[in-house]
Amino acid sequence: MTDSKSSLDRKECPRRALFYSFFVPLLAEFFTTFLHTFWGSMAGSPSSPTYYKQLNTTVTPQEWAADYLVSGLMPALQAGFSVWMLIVGFFKISVVHFNPAISVGFVVSGDLSWTMFVPYVIMQCLGAILGAFIAQELRGETITPFYINDDANIVAIFFCEVITTGVIMFYALVTVVDKTYDQATGPLAIGMTVFQGILAGKWIGAGCLNPARWMGPALLAGGAAWNYHWVLWLGDCLGGLIFAVFYMTFFAPADRAWILKF
Amino acid sequence: MTDSKSSLDRKECPRRALFYSFFVPLLAEFFTTFLHTFWGSMAGSPSSPTYYKQLNTTVTPQEWAADYLVSGLMPALQAGFSVWMLIVGFFKISVVHFNPAISVGFVVSGDLSWTMFVPYVIMQCLGAILGAFIAQELRGETITPFYINDDANIVAIFFCEVITTGVIMFYALVTVVDKTYDQATGPLAIGMTVFQGILAGKWIGAGCLNPARWMGPALLAGGAAWNYHWVLWLGDCLGGLIFAVFYMTFFAPADRAWILKF
Amino acid sequence: MTDSKSSLDRKECPRRALFYSFFVPLLAEFFTTFLHTFWGSMAGSPSSPTYYKQLNTTVTPQEWAADYLVSGLMPALQAGFSVWMLIVGFFKISVVHFNPAISVGFVVSGDLSWTMFVPYVIMQCLGAILGAFIAQELRGETITPFYINDDANIVAIFFCEVITTGVIMFYALVTVVDKTYDQATGPLAIGMTVFQGILAGKWIGAGCLNPARWMGPALLAGGAAWNYHWVLWLGDCLGGLIFAVFYMTFFAPADRAWILKF
Amino acid sequence: MTDSKSSLDRKECPRRALFYSFFVPLLAEFFTTFLHTFWGSMAGSPSSPTYYKQLNTTVTPQEWAADYLVSGLMPALQAGFSVWMLIVGFFKISVVHFNPAISVGFVVSGDLSWTMFVPYVIMQCLGAILGAFIAQELRGETITPFYINDDANIVAIFFCEVITTGVIMFYALVTVVDKTYDQATGPLAIGMTVFQGILAGKWIGAGCLNPARWMGPALLAGGAAWNYHWVLWLGDCLGGLIFAVFYMTFFAPADRAWILKF
Repeated sequence: MTDSKSSLDRKECPRRALFYSFFVPLLAEFFTTFLHTFWGSMAGSPSSPTYYKQLNTTVTPQEWAADYLVSGLMPALQAGFSVWMLIVGFFKISVVHFNPAISVGFVVSGDLSWTMFVPYVIMQCLGAILGAFIAQELRGETITPFYINDDANIVAIFFCEVITTGVIMFYALVTVVDKTYDQATGPLAIGMTVFQGILAGKWIGAGCLNPARWMGPALLAGGAAWNYHWVLWLGDCLGGLIFAVFYMTFFAPADRAWILKF
Repeated sequence: MTDSKSSLDRKECPRRALFYSFFVPLLAEFFTTFLHTFWGSMAGSPSSPTYYKQLNTTVTPQEWAADYLVSGLMPALQAGFSVWMLIVGFFKISVVHFNPAISVGFVVSGDLSWTMFVPYVIMQCLGAILGAFIAQELRGETITPFYINDDANIVAIFFCEVITTGVIMFYALVTVVDKTYDQATGPLAIGMTVFQGILAGKWIGAGCLNPARWMGPALLAGGAAWNYHWVLWLGDCLGGLIFAVFYMTFFAPADRAWILKF
Repeated sequence: MTDSKSSLDRKECPRRALFYSFFVPLLAEFFTTFLHTFWGSMAGSPSSPTYYKQLNTTVTPQEWAADYLVSGLMPALQAGFSVWMLIVGFFKISVVHFNPAISVGFVVSGDLSWTMFVPYVIMQCLGAILGAFIAQELRGETITPFYINDDANIVAIFFCEVITTGVIMFYALVTVVDKTYDQATGPLAIGMTVFQGILAGKWIGAGCLNPARWMGPALLAGGAAWNYHWVLWLGDCLGGLIFAVFYMTFFAPADRAWILKF
Repeated sequence: MTDSKSSLDRKECPRRALFYSFFVPLLAEFFTTFLHTFWGSMAGSPSSPTYYKQLNTTVTPQEWAADYLVSGLMPALQAGFSVWMLIVGFFKISVVHFNPAISVGFVVSGDLSWTMFVPYVIMQCLGAILGAFIAQELRGETITPFYINDDANIVAIFFCEVITTGVIMFYALVTVVDKTYDQATGPLAIGMTVFQGILAGKWIGAGCLNPARWMGPALLAGGAAWNYHWVLWLGDCLGGLIFAVFYMTFFAPADRAWILKF
């Protein structure tokens, strides 16, 4: 919803109200998740080797740095910028989530109605599938999905996802729930929680942060890409939920802080 | 046009009106495209090897990372920052396009008059030629143009250009059409659509995004630099057109959204 | 304290006043220092070799660049972004320090009461310990602390810490003391003083900048991690103190500049 | 001068007026040039090899990338961020130049009085000398100055300095002369003109952009550091002058544009 469209106008015309309450937000979810997945899938390494295990053993400084650059700094900057860009690009159009975990948190905080939750997630998944599909067709090769190896520490990945995705949620709530929030670099900070989350997850094989975005490439790649895929969905959505409760309880503005209700 | 120059002043003096309606915008197009091309041409690699094909076969992680850094991250940051900088530098002087594809989209949205379109593109091309020429003289070597190899996937490059340049257009419209748009990092986000577009195009040989900027070096290099050069013009301008239609139809402010006109 | 919570509301309810004067600021210190340490500890190199000494002798350009990337640019960007993000994320919640040296300076300037200093530092240390502990559990390896080798130039490290941490303090005061300060990128500039400080300290083995953040990993690693650890505390806190005096004397707004009091 | 100090207060007290007209601006010039030089001198490579000539011949991609990272991206980011940070840090204290070329341009535009020009440049040089000196003492080695080799293309370096330093001037004027300028990322864009200037100058050995900042290390290193040092001063100051004339003539706000005076 935008300030530039008066509530008066919408009252006058039910068709217009429907347009701005359903069509625009859902199209925005679809398009932003499409772009987020498309950009990431196009920029990703062709071979995308997973070094993190070997790097714990013997590796030259140059190999180490090469991996850190290609599988750490680059995806972290690319995805972090992407999240921020989609938020500010659609700022006057819709509060875009393009992430089921974020939608979970906004349901908790009350900023997204329960009835819109499933449509939101469906549009996110459809957008991610299209983004990965077009990237696959353009590159002429399978888009590398987010692999979880059988011998990875699943428990560590799970908890890392809970914390890092939770922090994204925390920042999203800070800028949305508090109507007085006016920090110009706030949206960039939301994006950079993804930068921090990817770097934080790198050495243990975590850093998904958005299950819909990685469901697209997984669907196209199939097979091992589905290994423990549910861990990403559960961890990320649980992170969104826990940190939304944490924020709403203690840090929300005084008129909305749960702890002050009692 | 700037807020600091009252329309009253211009009405009073036809010469001054002409100055701010024609001379300043056209000089700004020339100067910004010059700077954009000059900065890019000076920063570009002396040898600029095209690795993308070989990298799909056997390559060490270090070679891979070296190429990603030099032909990916660096140009993406350099060009992305450049676009943002030119926008904010001229914010109170003129809505600078320095890109024919963007001028196409602004004609579609109605923010640039048809009569100004050709002069804009001419000034953009002249600026790019001067930028590449001075860079060539200072460096004492030919400036590497945007090559499209005969065995590249032209169709993939074409569609990638349509999408990535279209997204730049989308962001330019978001900040210009919606007069209530007030996100401080919006112009930086426009610039970073170029960052994303260059990384997105890297592995398939796309990432031109601005046909005028690359026409300059192509004119000086000649020969193979003109191979499929029209693909860049057609793809980028078509992207600007399609995404302008897309934005104006669904996402423009309620008073300008085309779909609400019916 | 936030603008969105009227002082009226707090007056009405002592319990609420206590909540916003003690509980929220202290929880914010704990949580921000936790996140700062967690992000840094998760992103840090698994082996984290200290090259700086060898690099002064014979080293290939690639080894040099690899080290510069992994132990210079990456931590500088990661930590710099982290500081900025925590500031803007908690902007409407609390003026977060997450650094004892910054708390020292704010006591000097009068923006933190003496009685709150010790609780602040305790919460900062507890947050850092938890952040390092969780990172250690998730990674399954000891988190590399900030080592000071016996043969390092301790005096140089000390003075470097004084200056670089002092500059962080200077920027923190600029944005907090001057109520008219309205630069949108000011908080990002505070964060980037850490970027500059880490790069400045790199070649001599300095760049701690925050003794609490590094106390966490040191506590878990033990042993040599405590070598000259007091230098970090003394240097950073002294830097905070000196630069706070410097700022308050000459550069504070006219109504608070100490030199104009006489 | 700051908005927070009313002109009334200063009128009332000649001593206070003197303090804010002379002491604060000059101390700010000294301190910012000190910091700019200190940060750059501390972060610079210990050995700082000049590869640009060899790189035009045979070099592996990795060597190329290593050099681009260490002598291109890193200094460009470091110095670019530094310039932006010093501007926003002192935004409410003084319009800091910390660069003689910028002071030249501000004299041209009329924003710095002739009588203050020499004191400004002196404070800038003193700050740079102290910054380089402290860095030298802390690192225990000579700080690498900005070398111009005898076989470099001096003419190309000269013109490159004119253009790249001129663009910094252009951006400084945009944000200072036009009182309605309100782009939040404007100061960051000024800083990033240095980013672009360093990358633009890299392959031909240019990229000084600030003669005072490099006079400090040159004074300490002596000898070959003074080769063609005057080219830096002449090129940079001429760039500041030419682009100030260019901006003031065509692009300054209507009430100050020189071309509209006739």
